[in-house]
Amino acid sequence: MSTAERTFLEGGHALAEAAIRAGCRFYCGYPMTPSTEVLEYMGRRMPEVGGVCVNVESELEGINMVWGAAGAGVRAMIASTTNGMSLMQESLSEMVLGRIPAVIVNMGRGQGDYNMCTRGGGHGSNPTIVLAPYSAQEAVETAYRAFHLAEKWRHPVMIYGDFILSHTSETVRFAPPDDATGALPERSWATDGARDRPPRLLTSLGMRITQAPDGSPLPDGRTRTDVTAPMRMAVQRHREIAAAETRVDTAWLDDAELVVSAFGVLARFARYAAQLAREEGMKIGFVRPYTLVPFPEGTFGEIARRGLPIAVFENNAGQMVRDVRLAAAGRAPVHFIGGISMDSSGFGVGPDIDVLHILERLRAVYSARGRPESE
Amino acid sequence: MSTAERTFLEGGHALAEAAIRAGCRFYCGYPMTPSTEVLEYMGRRMPEVGGVCVNVESELEGINMVWGAAGAGVRAMIASTTNGMSLMQESLSEMVLGRIPAVIVNMGRGQGDYNMCTRGGGHGSNPTIVLAPYSAQEAVETAYRAFHLAEKWRHPVMIYGDFILSHTSETVRFAPPDDATGALPERSWATDGARDRPPRLLTSLGMRITQAPDGSPLPDGRTRTDVTAPMRMAVQRHREIAAAETRVDTAWLDDAELVVSAFGVLARFARYAAQLAREEGMKIGFVRPYTLVPFPEGTFGEIARRGLPIAVFENNAGQMVRDVRLAAAGRAPVHFIGGISMDSSGFGVGPDIDVLHILERLRAVYSARGRPESE
Amino acid sequence: MSTAERTFLEGGHALAEAAIRAGCRFYCGYPMTPSTEVLEYMGRRMPEVGGVCVNVESELEGINMVWGAAGAGVRAMIASTTNGMSLMQESLSEMVLGRIPAVIVNMGRGQGDYNMCTRGGGHGSNPTIVLAPYSAQEAVETAYRAFHLAEKWRHPVMIYGDFILSHTSETVRFAPPDDATGALPERSWATDGARDRPPRLLTSLGMRITQAPDGSPLPDGRTRTDVTAPMRMAVQRHREIAAAETRVDTAWLDDAELVVSAFGVLARFARYAAQLAREEGMKIGFVRPYTLVPFPEGTFGEIARRGLPIAVFENNAGQMVRDVRLAAAGRAPVHFIGGISMDSSGFGVGPDIDVLHILERLRAVYSARGRPESE
Amino acid sequence: MSTAERTFLEGGHALAEAAIRAGCRFYCGYPMTPSTEVLEYMGRRMPEVGGVCVNVESELEGINMVWGAAGAGVRAMIASTTNGMSLMQESLSEMVLGRIPAVIVNMGRGQGDYNMCTRGGGHGSNPTIVLAPYSAQEAVETAYRAFHLAEKWRHPVMIYGDFILSHTSETVRFAPPDDATGALPERSWATDGARDRPPRLLTSLGMRITQAPDGSPLPDGRTRTDVTAPMRMAVQRHREIAAAETRVDTAWLDDAELVVSAFGVLARFARYAAQLAREEGMKIGFVRPYTLVPFPEGTFGEIARRGLPIAVFENNAGQMVRDVRLAAAGRAPVHFIGGISMDSSGFGVGPDIDVLHILERLRAVYSARGRPESE
Repeated sequence: MSTAERTFLEGGHALAEAAIRAGCRFYCGYPMTPSTEVLEYMGRRMPEVGGVCVNVESELEGINMVWGAAGAGVRAMIASTTNGMSLMQESLSEMVLGRIPAVIVNMGRGQGDYNMCTRGGGHGSNPTIVLAPYSAQEAVETAYRAFHLAEKWRHPVMIYGDFILSHTSETVRFAPPDDATGALPERSWATDGARDRPPRLLTSLGMRITQAPDGSPLPDGRTRTDVTAPMRMAVQRHREIAAAETRVDTAWLDDAELVVSAFGVLARFARYAAQLAREEGMKIGFVRPYTLVPFPEGTFGEIARRGLPIAVFENNAGQMVRDVRLAAAGRAPVHFIGGISMDSSGFGVGPDIDVLHILERLRAVYSARGRPESE
Repeated sequence: MSTAERTFLEGGHALAEAAIRAGCRFYCGYPMTPSTEVLEYMGRRMPEVGGVCVNVESELEGINMVWGAAGAGVRAMIASTTNGMSLMQESLSEMVLGRIPAVIVNMGRGQGDYNMCTRGGGHGSNPTIVLAPYSAQEAVETAYRAFHLAEKWRHPVMIYGDFILSHTSETVRFAPPDDATGALPERSWATDGARDRPPRLLTSLGMRITQAPDGSPLPDGRTRTDVTAPMRMAVQRHREIAAAETRVDTAWLDDAELVVSAFGVLARFARYAAQLAREEGMKIGFVRPYTLVPFPEGTFGEIARRGLPIAVFENNAGQMVRDVRLAAAGRAPVHFIGGISMDSSGFGVGPDIDVLHILERLRAVYSARGRPESE
Repeated sequence: MSTAERTFLEGGHALAEAAIRAGCRFYCGYPMTPSTEVLEYMGRRMPEVGGVCVNVESELEGINMVWGAAGAGVRAMIASTTNGMSLMQESLSEMVLGRIPAVIVNMGRGQGDYNMCTRGGGHGSNPTIVLAPYSAQEAVETAYRAFHLAEKWRHPVMIYGDFILSHTSETVRFAPPDDATGALPERSWATDGARDRPPRLLTSLGMRITQAPDGSPLPDGRTRTDVTAPMRMAVQRHREIAAAETRVDTAWLDDAELVVSAFGVLARFARYAAQLAREEGMKIGFVRPYTLVPFPEGTFGEIARRGLPIAVFENNAGQMVRDVRLAAAGRAPVHFIGGISMDSSGFGVGPDIDVLHILERLRAVYSARGRPESE
Repeated sequence: MSTAERTFLEGGHALAEAAIRAGCRFYCGYPMTPSTEVLEYMGRRMPEVGGVCVNVESELEGINMVWGAAGAGVRAMIASTTNGMSLMQESLSEMVLGRIPAVIVNMGRGQGDYNMCTRGGGHGSNPTIVLAPYSAQEAVETAYRAFHLAEKWRHPVMIYGDFILSHTSETVRFAPPDDATGALPERSWATDGARDRPPRLLTSLGMRITQAPDGSPLPDGRTRTDVTAPMRMAVQRHREIAAAETRVDTAWLDDAELVVSAFGVLARFARYAAQLAREEGMKIGFVRPYTLVPFPEGTFGEIARRGLPIAVFENNAGQMVRDVRLAAAGRAPVHFIGGISMDSSGFGVGPDIDVLHILERLRAVYSARGRPESE
């Protein structure tokens, strides 16, 4: 496949192929639907490019292999699903503090992992960067971008997809997005063999400090380990990442009287529902956070300052909606129009993942705008 | 020790003793400061009461042993610290769905686990109940209460303490609080040996449903498994728990012009700082969430509706402050006056955990009240 | 149950009860037929006597828990089956070098583990003591004896049974055999808490030596670790154990013209076949090694010196027969009359475990005596 | 490196390179002296040839990865040392029954693993083939041969070396020995993807049988699983392997009055000692078993039938000597002249691994020949 030609692939396969083209040479995973497809593709492709694919014993082992490979300067990735992500939490948290530039894919089942992905990491303190593509083509671009951001910031990057993204075949074209092609810092930290240079240490356990904050030497003339320094630096790094990398996809905001928001593949459903609503004469805008961490607080803040009500659609009991409310800070009503649903079985379990269902919810919120928000 | 006499014990030991008196007969743990003391105490005491204490190979194994013991109807507990909690996330999440009434103690280092404890669980969807005692005596009462709530709601309960709670010796008296003495439902779910009764199944994987929501039989005359039902029921259960069990400790709210809030042992520092401030003439109120899940949104909502500014002190980069802001919903400014600090080394790493430091921050916020909030 | 009364129990349960009466207070196991019954019994009984029973995650974990408990001076036991024994080999080997007085039960399926039990241990160098009871009553006595020998020699002791021993109910009486009641050395090595005494170290890794073999100080004035010392001492210990503890059960040797030998429960079948043969006029003797390690080489050596042919019956492809041949050293023919058989399904898979089958084989060997041995 | 040129390499590296040239494309290991060198070499070389090298979490995991890779038809190898081999025993045993053609290298420390390698495997019943090279060049040839035999017989093959073999650099030439170049059966069993063919099953758990031994259909018209069939077939396969593959290296047997025997690198010491003895006028022959399983019983049997005494030198407390005695069957005295020694520290721990020491022992046995054997 050259970069010019277009190919018809499942989203999971497309993401895997793009990762390889982005230079990924170590992959591991433990099978779990719907991330299994990434493992299967990697198992076939990695040997062809001289890379390594390991079917690990557990996700816990896998994330530590990725730590080792990425720490050695190899572009390394792992994919899993919900429960597997929970099993990785401890290592993932330490990788943030240890500044390991790995890529982690969570092909979730529904969207119920939002809180874990954006709040659980770093033992609660310092999450990874989290990117949520909404199509196979964007999954391709996100794979390139994830490796780029991981090295640019020396920070783990998570790609958060779901079963629809993984299993739906779409036409894709392989080329890195412009923002993922710039020069990167040298891997001056990689533990890639200490020949002709001093040894290096990758650790999450603290930093050696040699002077007091005022620059004076430590009283006892010795160095000491500051265990909080990596945490405080991670907080600072997140501020810089938020300033530079926040990405959000918007439409029809200029004349909007109601804004619908969603993330991931479901945002395509929401966008189409908004389009149908506009054809019915409703002035509905659209906001899709692409970076979940950092969250596009500014965009929502501006919308709220205009007093525009916001309707949030998620396939969970209401998680991103809280981040939207935090950003809105009471300046505009924020309505939750999602719910828990795993399928469209016809037995009415939660809202169907269905454009017409979303359209119906939008109609209801639109006609009630001006009234206070509902949960 | 009778229940009448008062005893001088470290907080970790006091909590362990209270757990045993509350009927805990299975405990396991893997050593990690500052939760090691609980393990050490249990290792000595459990054999004396005919219980079992296991020094497990890892926290991952431990939480599954607790699952097994609690599932069999035994009061069971595990304690760990931060990283160990991360390792338990997957099992803990499934225990929420499987409705296992276990007690989990997180003796954190700082307070950086707040997000993980309140948002990471349930794979992000359904956290445990989380209780945050602020003294050895309250740790004792919390141990009794945790087992009571766990069985009352058939839901895991977390006790979230820190190294100060664990390591500080205080005088305690052992007696269950009144709200932990009521009748409990029968353990009609416990897999305690299917003699003279049908077998039972404890699972997190779904519910068997036999009819459509309208009560009509399923079209194919068969049962089917609804994997979303446990999730939706957990959401509903959390609503009921929030209505019945939310607990918050407040002081001096009537005339307050600024409210300081903190949780856990640090709330004692914050309360004392508020008291000193009042002696200086500042009208400062105090709010301490005791239940972190469910969070006392109502209390903060009322304060915000009065337009009172709120200052939140936490030993992390700002986590509970977001829940306070969500509850305030923009009606009042919410200031963060905490930060990351592991010790009082004198090298100025973050804010000291120090009453006078908090007092100073309160003075600054108090004199600036009326101006917009700062982060 | 008093020691006087007789009780009707499965062999596995009888062995477990006797272990408890012998003072065993720590038991763990992972279920695997036919050792599961021991675990089940212990799970019920241990709490009644204030002991601990743990259903471990794997045999590998279990043997290390037993190491820890026995090293702390507690009488500790584990039971497993064939594959589980293979999983324990590394730890078991190190326990021989570390001199840990634990009891390990191998309830094998057939008798195919003989080589592993007698040759695989100690990484091939230093096996455990191995005792092979042939009835529920002897299993009871063996449990008492195993703990006694383990402490007497500070050496792990294995009890090697099979599914017939485990699953067959027989009447037993609980009382320690005379040789298991003597005084034992103090547990001066146990790591049971270094209060008011220097710390102790239990290690398999080597011995600290402070002088050369001739008594002169080491040239560099320092101590050094001799990694071979524990191995050479284990060899010496095995010689002493062989001299003191070898046990063998014999019958009808005085006038024998053919000797049949077997171990474990199958020896009862062989003995009864020999008895039937004698009723037919064949002069057949009987030898049953009770200690497989140390092996009763002397008894077989004497029989061979008399030129008496020996027929060995085992439920495997021929393992103990090699030890008999080694002892016979060519002075008498040694015939193998066993084979691999797991059941009596009627499909002719190997020799039936059947008295009449053994009798038939004995007739054939008896009538052919004087001719060279067959394999 | 072409096959013609000669290269100077450590034995461990030479073996690794030969394995790759023999087609090995999956290697894994956990570091442990003296097998670490094989892992290090593979870590560097495998990526160059498009193969995979994994530094596993434990030997237990490693042997199961090798099972998976070899079962999929890839030539796969693992190396470890003594304790690591003990950890592999369970999987290794099942691989014999499951007929997995993998290569396992045991770079032992001394030679104390002989019993475990030749008796512990197959849970005691069915060991692997075991080859013991005595030089770097023979290690090279053994690597080729091991993969050839593994596929020829669909049976795991162990290469048993030691620290001298692994760490000593020698000149080697890479070319397969003639007996390792023949045609091999198709991999008609490999689970390499069931495209356009029925699925395959690799299992150690039993065989499906469809008729009674007499050819009549099973009475119930169904198939049944015969769990003993794989064991009985393994016994039969071992007989065929013994007939076809037993290899032994001998010298100076024609006029010998005493035969010295040893295996592995130590056999070079023994051979040189024999040569020095012959220069002193002693008629000493030499026998080196190259295949430890199958053991060259025939060669020793013939020597014993000539009444020639045999002296066995091993770096352990006496293990192969028992197999020599079994083969001699009392027809000639068998003397043990080895012992436990890990080094030549000068502190007299056991016999030095030293040609002059062996020569001295040979002089003693030679002058005492005719007298009965000593242990």
